[in-house]
Amino acid sequence: MSALLDIARTKGVMIATAESCTGGLIAGRITDEPGTSDIFDRGFVTYSNAAKVEMLGIRPKTLETHGAVSEEIAREMAEGAVARSEASIAVSVTGIAGPGSSDTKPEGRVCFGLATPAGTTTETVEFGALGREQVRNATVTHALELILKALQAL
Amino acid sequence: MSALLDIARTKGVMIATAESCTGGLIAGRITDEPGTSDIFDRGFVTYSNAAKVEMLGIRPKTLETHGAVSEEIAREMAEGAVARSEASIAVSVTGIAGPGSSDTKPEGRVCFGLATPAGTTTETVEFGALGREQVRNATVTHALELILKALQAL
Repeated sequence: MSALLDIARTKGVMIATAESCTGGLIAGRITDEPGTSDIFDRGFVTYSNAAKVEMLGIRPKTLETHGAVSEEIAREMAEGAVARSEASIAVSVTGIAGPGSSDTKPEGRVCFGLATPAGTTTETVEFGALGREQVRNATVTHALELILKALQAL
Repeated sequence: MSALLDIARTKGVMIATAESCTGGLIAGRITDEPGTSDIFDRGFVTYSNAAKVEMLGIRPKTLETHGAVSEEIAREMAEGAVARSEASIAVSVTGIAGPGSSDTKPEGRVCFGLATPAGTTTETVEFGALGREQVRNATVTHALELILKALQAL
């Protein structure tokens, strides 16, 4: 974590988060360290679909077409977080933490978005049915890795 | 935690959070349990002052006059979270998690706000210099107790 903070501070980058299945834990992990107020701006915990639309500007049409757990929504979440904050990098997560699957989507599927000045990328990781706590922890770790890589590439 | 979820579900209440020093951990704790999407709407992680103003409608004048760690700001955060969500109850926290004090405010001071249909209350708790992790954990626990009491009183 301190590597992430150091590089963000050195490069003068502010970070934001947009979280669904992790419910704030990525922002919580970033701010575990003291003195993060110069690199962490804000976090959007958009648990409900209404929150995704109102806080991040997700298009209802995208929700209807692809569902909340999709790379399309992860993309709109990350881009919405950058657009609606002082941050230049935002990570987003939306997934099925479980237990249980949801409609046609399996337990442990998490879609990530990463918006940076170089553009937005998305990916899907199938963590599998590890259990809710482990899926959420693995999601937090992966999201922080994405931010670190993005910072290193700046 | 499950008592809180059960009573919120029984009473059909949606909850929101507005967090500064805990950085999303209250929302993270509420959503540790599966199936919270019918009682947890969204969380505002307003780490920077800009985030407090833009996400929750905190008045810059209140920040100037009382500082971010004050019951006045906690009140505006909780009321802003209800006004800008689908929730009818919101808890807010703003404090000095430490290490170290901030200006004239001691390490471990946390101001809480609780907005409910019956009105808004605020309080300040001096957790003392327990260390950052323990102050944050104690803050999460106290915030959840405030929500539980508010639900029981509805």
